[in-house]
Amino acid sequence: MDIVMVGAGNLATHLARALDEQGFRIRQVYSRTREAASELATQVGADYTTRIEALHKHAHIYICALKDDALLQLIPSLTKCNPDALWLHTAGSIPMGVWQNYADRHGVFYPLQTFSKHREVDFKEIPLFVEANNEDDRTLIDLLAHSLTDKVYHASSEGRKQLHLAAVFACNFTNHLYALADELLSKWGLPFEAILPLIDETAKKVHQLKPHEAQTGPAVRHDNEVMEKQRQMLADMPDVQQIYNMLSESIQKANRQ
Amino acid sequence: MDIVMVGAGNLATHLARALDEQGFRIRQVYSRTREAASELATQVGADYTTRIEALHKHAHIYICALKDDALLQLIPSLTKCNPDALWLHTAGSIPMGVWQNYADRHGVFYPLQTFSKHREVDFKEIPLFVEANNEDDRTLIDLLAHSLTDKVYHASSEGRKQLHLAAVFACNFTNHLYALADELLSKWGLPFEAILPLIDETAKKVHQLKPHEAQTGPAVRHDNEVMEKQRQMLADMPDVQQIYNMLSESIQKANRQ
Repeated sequence: MDIVMVGAGNLATHLARALDEQGFRIRQVYSRTREAASELATQVGADYTTRIEALHKHAHIYICALKDDALLQLIPSLTKCNPDALWLHTAGSIPMGVWQNYADRHGVFYPLQTFSKHREVDFKEIPLFVEANNEDDRTLIDLLAHSLTDKVYHASSEGRKQLHLAAVFACNFTNHLYALADELLSKWGLPFEAILPLIDETAKKVHQLKPHEAQTGPAVRHDNEVMEKQRQMLADMPDVQQIYNMLSESIQKANRQ
Repeated sequence: MDIVMVGAGNLATHLARALDEQGFRIRQVYSRTREAASELATQVGADYTTRIEALHKHAHIYICALKDDALLQLIPSLTKCNPDALWLHTAGSIPMGVWQNYADRHGVFYPLQTFSKHREVDFKEIPLFVEANNEDDRTLIDLLAHSLTDKVYHASSEGRKQLHLAAVFACNFTNHLYALADELLSKWGLPFEAILPLIDETAKKVHQLKPHEAQTGPAVRHDNEVMEKQRQMLADMPDVQQIYNMLSESIQKANRQ
């Protein structure tokens, strides 16, 4: 089964490598930039191109792992190379219907995970949410998905959008809080490493307790003295202080409910 | 070495149990509430009391793991039972100096971790930040600390306050974002379990990458279409929408710097 990977960003890279390892043949990598395209192509033994007109015309599956706006913009021109193939995108927030007018066979292959280029991930641990517009292709996508992970779920476009938004809170925003903690610690000359065990335990805890039950800290304890002192420590960082206030209030509100 | 544990909350419970396991003798547990005092006392084979006047008068070390305001309020009356003993508190935000006028020998024993009653923790993985007002007692506290973990650090009251504030971001606020994600998923009938691999990977990533480098998601990609749609999905939850906006802006600001 020949696959073309459209995109060479973080997700495209990890996905192409994982599929390559499972014996699928990545025929070609497309990226706007030559460097990204050739780097990924080399890793998976594929050709590469930076021109949409040069897309391989006889692959079975085209997986588009692009930024959302680039995907929406490129769908009409991409699909021209092989409108009868199976076209997939990997975006949480984009409904399957975007393919409707351009490719009869289409679907979605959405890994609910965060990918960074220089960080290996184990696809086996990644939940994949898949969708297809016909039974045969759903079976095909399931096969692809199950070769990578046991955690394969069917989700509608609506469900996927909801998962994606929850993931923004649980991953993107969480990581930004780590970044703010790092910024504070650096400013004070303290090592970020010191809080890694705390970060780990915070994540592990919610495997066992509901996050609401796992809440600790000055806000949920209504420890006003500590909170007032902590606000003062952030006096020279008004944006961070505002985040402190807003999240503390939100914790207290959730606790009243 | 006889220890009195003043407090029977989450931290007091985990700490008393860990010390008991290491062969230290917990003589007595004090708590305002009989139930909490007796529950912990039973676990560590100690007496218990709910009256400050009945505190054991001949222990070597008194460890006070109380809410910050309770600690500040109780120090004068607690120390009367044995002002010559070593008095410790476990609070990140309270300077060692609070003991000054009440106990000659004093210090701090601050575990940088989040504790919940029904969740076991491995003390070996917990960084302990200790402080003492004299060399002999620092040695004693070091001994106590090293019996529990290899990660023993000396930190001033100022450094501890800073660590505590960073921990509020990396742990308490992070957990609240998990809680908001959980709230969204429940509302939409989706299982929280589906995002656990994402939560785990987000935490693991920052062992290897700086959080700033690990940032992913629509905000850092300036994916305005997705962000606009996600804002709309939160239209009926104005507080959560405000958190979405503020953290997204903060991510973009950090990325400009």
